[in-house]
Amino acid sequence: MTKTAMNYLSALPLRDVRLTRGFLAERARLVRDVVIPYQWEALNDRVAGAERSGCVHNFQVAAGEKPGKFHGLFWQDSDLAKWIEAASYRLATHPDPALDAELDRLIATMAKAQGEDGYLNTYFQLVEPHNRWANLRDCHELYVAGHMIEAGVAHFQATGKRTLLEVVGRFADLIERTFGVGPGQIPGYCGHEEIELALVRLARATAEPRYARLAAYFIDQRGRSPNYLLEETRRRGEDKLPWHMFFDGLATLQADRPVRELAEPVGHAVRQMYLLAAMADLARDLGDASLRRSCDALWESIVRRHLYITGGVGAEPYGEKFGEPFDLPPDRAYAETCAAIGVIFFARRMLELELRGDYADVIERSLYNNVLSGMSLDGTKFFYVNPLEVVPAVARRRYDCHQVKTQRVGWFGCACCPPNVARLFASLGDYVASLRPDGLALHLYAEGDLRFTLSGKEVRLAVRTDYPWTEEIAIEVRPSEPAEFTVYLRIPAWCRGAWVAINGIRSSAGIFPIASGYLVLDRLWQAGDQIVLTLPMPVERMRADPRVSAVAGRVALQRGPLVYCLEEADHGANLAAVRLPKDAELTTRFDDALLGGCVVIEGRATRLQPGRALYDAGETQSVGLPFRAVPYGLWANRGEGEMRVWLHEA
Amino acid sequence: MTKTAMNYLSALPLRDVRLTRGFLAERARLVRDVVIPYQWEALNDRVAGAERSGCVHNFQVAAGEKPGKFHGLFWQDSDLAKWIEAASYRLATHPDPALDAELDRLIATMAKAQGEDGYLNTYFQLVEPHNRWANLRDCHELYVAGHMIEAGVAHFQATGKRTLLEVVGRFADLIERTFGVGPGQIPGYCGHEEIELALVRLARATAEPRYARLAAYFIDQRGRSPNYLLEETRRRGEDKLPWHMFFDGLATLQADRPVRELAEPVGHAVRQMYLLAAMADLARDLGDASLRRSCDALWESIVRRHLYITGGVGAEPYGEKFGEPFDLPPDRAYAETCAAIGVIFFARRMLELELRGDYADVIERSLYNNVLSGMSLDGTKFFYVNPLEVVPAVARRRYDCHQVKTQRVGWFGCACCPPNVARLFASLGDYVASLRPDGLALHLYAEGDLRFTLSGKEVRLAVRTDYPWTEEIAIEVRPSEPAEFTVYLRIPAWCRGAWVAINGIRSSAGIFPIASGYLVLDRLWQAGDQIVLTLPMPVERMRADPRVSAVAGRVALQRGPLVYCLEEADHGANLAAVRLPKDAELTTRFDDALLGGCVVIEGRATRLQPGRALYDAGETQSVGLPFRAVPYGLWANRGEGEMRVWLHEA
Repeated sequence: MTKTAMNYLSALPLRDVRLTRGFLAERARLVRDVVIPYQWEALNDRVAGAERSGCVHNFQVAAGEKPGKFHGLFWQDSDLAKWIEAASYRLATHPDPALDAELDRLIATMAKAQGEDGYLNTYFQLVEPHNRWANLRDCHELYVAGHMIEAGVAHFQATGKRTLLEVVGRFADLIERTFGVGPGQIPGYCGHEEIELALVRLARATAEPRYARLAAYFIDQRGRSPNYLLEETRRRGEDKLPWHMFFDGLATLQADRPVRELAEPVGHAVRQMYLLAAMADLARDLGDASLRRSCDALWESIVRRHLYITGGVGAEPYGEKFGEPFDLPPDRAYAETCAAIGVIFFARRMLELELRGDYADVIERSLYNNVLSGMSLDGTKFFYVNPLEVVPAVARRRYDCHQVKTQRVGWFGCACCPPNVARLFASLGDYVASLRPDGLALHLYAEGDLRFTLSGKEVRLAVRTDYPWTEEIAIEVRPSEPAEFTVYLRIPAWCRGAWVAINGIRSSAGIFPIASGYLVLDRLWQAGDQIVLTLPMPVERMRADPRVSAVAGRVALQRGPLVYCLEEADHGANLAAVRLPKDAELTTRFDDALLGGCVVIEGRATRLQPGRALYDAGETQSVGLPFRAVPYGLWANRGEGEMRVWLHEA
Repeated sequence: MTKTAMNYLSALPLRDVRLTRGFLAERARLVRDVVIPYQWEALNDRVAGAERSGCVHNFQVAAGEKPGKFHGLFWQDSDLAKWIEAASYRLATHPDPALDAELDRLIATMAKAQGEDGYLNTYFQLVEPHNRWANLRDCHELYVAGHMIEAGVAHFQATGKRTLLEVVGRFADLIERTFGVGPGQIPGYCGHEEIELALVRLARATAEPRYARLAAYFIDQRGRSPNYLLEETRRRGEDKLPWHMFFDGLATLQADRPVRELAEPVGHAVRQMYLLAAMADLARDLGDASLRRSCDALWESIVRRHLYITGGVGAEPYGEKFGEPFDLPPDRAYAETCAAIGVIFFARRMLELELRGDYADVIERSLYNNVLSGMSLDGTKFFYVNPLEVVPAVARRRYDCHQVKTQRVGWFGCACCPPNVARLFASLGDYVASLRPDGLALHLYAEGDLRFTLSGKEVRLAVRTDYPWTEEIAIEVRPSEPAEFTVYLRIPAWCRGAWVAINGIRSSAGIFPIASGYLVLDRLWQAGDQIVLTLPMPVERMRADPRVSAVAGRVALQRGPLVYCLEEADHGANLAAVRLPKDAELTTRFDDALLGGCVVIEGRATRLQPGRALYDAGETQSVGLPFRAVPYGLWANRGEGEMRVWLHEA
């Protein structure tokens, strides 16, 4: 193990991170109590009025347990796989014998459905057995396999049971035999990345490095000449690429060139993020410096040129793609919930490569804004697309806003986002902290208890905070015996003037170093040591780089990690006419009756008044109005109406 | 003739309005010398590299003059008809025996192609004779007939020859027998309006009111229940409407309800404007007060809620349609050249109903901005779509900007706009002035000579001006003998503080009344009387109604009738970062080396500088830069680059 490798970080086991109270814990509870049970009903076709899923049915048919036909799209199995993953995370933190038994039954069915050779994909088994691996470009076959593998790993890690792990292991072995550049092998890869990061998880869970090498094959082969996906297209006798590849061709799938030659994120945003997550994994596990350089370059480009202030990516609805650098229109944002989750996946892996605050800052930004927006306050409805500005009448009327929903919906025909939100919120513990050989790093602040072992000594951290509403985070350190190690506390980039007190003694500036965005508290910790970190959260008027033409000259309000927005519910229609005076005093207040309880930003604004003509040379008249901004992630929980993040100043 | 009717206005014959020098005359000359000859070559398939037209070929085949097949789309004939119209206007103002003879030969061929019963449409004659009138919704059959009729009228008025007029008269007679609610008649109307306004022109040219009644039938029948277009759709066994009607259904064709019930402009913008032009015509010729009320309401709505500052309409590219009120995004504007021409058609007819400055103001706005943008400085290239903001890289990449061309092109597959520009610029005389029983009204100011007769007395007006560059318009009145009549001079709404001098004596305020936007000069005119009108043209910072969300908080520079824009050629890329200080002094200067000679607006602006991060809480730094705005209508004549009309202030 090299020096560098020693500094790699790893997540704590989920069961050792208990979020007990507060904002994130409440979302996790919703997912446990509402979302996961609801989705199980949906996957079993027992939700009246919802679109039929067919997922469980398909496996029962494939297992010979019942007669019937396959239902759904060719990636239908992945909905079930993501749910198994989420349910497993739930079991890890909140044991539940009934759910455990339900999973066992389901997994038994899945094992029966698996082919002799290890193949498992109910669409191709039931509908097109002769076309197995024949259309890697479109059919998501390896993508579905990847989600199955993630489910198997999560189930094993949560329960210790190897039942599903063995199923997916056999499938992975088949894939290993099938794909490659050897004789008789298919030199292909999947049109939708996912298998790569899944194989790394499998390699780690089984301590079988060959799965990581298989992932590396898929990464290395991607985009090489001669191009496999083009050859496959020709072999099928097709004379053109499908519609969603019209503008960017194979770059839509990050397959126009070898991945190490990518300079900008490109194509389908979720695919790009899943690819990068796998590249970061392999940069670590295989010590691949050239992959690391590509990850660094793409990270830099995403964060500097392609990230919405809400932490979303994918500005181009057509093909759900990345757009031109700095092309980040608020009203026509795609900013798919799954793509922001992909950002979080990539950022966490970069963070595990190197403890750098900007990685965790982006995780926090995406989680508290774009991803949060993806789920309703009651956990029953979801956004697929997360614009930063909506005028419902226009969104309904304009074709170029047709992807925008003005209200969250219960389920989607293409139901990728709801179970992705579920598995993320069910595994929040993976993002809260990481262990290093020399200590523990806290990335996200949420009330709860953490447990870990360092040099054979057990340590508990008890975190008490109302973050993100309040500025103070109290941490009690409880080593089983006095121990020297480092507690790294992230100082978010949005925060200026953070300070810390240990056992009531406030540190002077400079006593504790800040390295790469983390406060470094290195000392001999005694049981009962108290750290109090204060992260001042003034309301900030954020401005975008002036190359973001769509919002040039506007400001977005941010307090702590939360981006704020105006809603029609508070101001009436035509939010574009509301002006925030440059000198307006903005106050904050916790309103426990609003949106489940949240800090609102208030002040006086002005509203431009319609004049006599559509265009006029005079100054536009305005009147004052009370102004109230609410967290963007909580928007659209009070009926349909306009919403606007980027505001005009007066 | 009622009192009201007596005040109706009419255009002077084209030959009596000679534009001799200056900005508009130069465009008219380009059309005469470049566009009309070029288009004739294109219509004869003699332009190397251009898409094949087939127009003349189709008529020769239909006439039995040559063997061959029909080429093109089912409205192909209309390209030729619009060209005949433009060529006829050219003959009216600039006699040309060669062109005259060419037209005679063409018309002889067309007459031979006409069916025994009067039918004339080469597509249906050569390709689908059995489907005549079977798909009024899509096939533009009456639309093409309308353009044929306009061509016949224009040719007759220009040359006095009845050759083509008789052809189209026989066709109109067939249409009259075919359509209606009588026994054996088709109770239908065209999916694309045009026949209606054409029939009014035919009625006036032939003094046959029955053609106006036929137009009235088409107007009255449109959108009535049971809906003819729906019945026709069902009869063809189609189970859904075509894609472009997806959002608005029959309203896309203004056919979802009787036209008198329209409250907002809706659907395909060109169709809506052609419909309104015909409605205004009929309100006049038939004294139909309910049509007049609808025209008034729609005019008000268009001007107050749907008009781009450039005088364009149609904000929704999908289906080339009107959008929601106030939804006028600058970058995704459709603002089709033909739609702005339609605005001018409608406005002129409203103006002929009632002398009101706002009608002529809109003509001027649309002509000098949106329509002017439609044609390149050299007359060889055209825009179909006229956005108010372009970033070429983004326009090429984003699907929702795919309609935007960053450079004008030579011809289009659907070549409606170039010949429409040609016929408008070839008939500018129709818009310059109108005759009333009591005098003459001048709407547009351009150097030239006008000739008219009032109460039997011949009058000439000699106009000398460099408008729109200079503020002064000198008019010499030359009645054949002293005569009392009124000269109405439009005082544009953009102008404050206009003043007039007669024979060197400057009028004091209030001496001459201004009525509905026109200065009323009523006196006994002597030969040689000199009027000098001065229209001060300071640079104005125009602001849109704050309900125009897309440009709320921005300003557009306007001087006189011209809207200005920034171009990358003068400022480099990223025009969104350029800020116009609120107190910046703006000067104007005629630059005779730029864009064929034009007034530029200059001053000092600032440019926001990129910061360290994509989003930042600090004030954005900026640097000063010289600033130069050029007339919007002349943009994109200096290579590809960004362009921006709506600017941010600092």
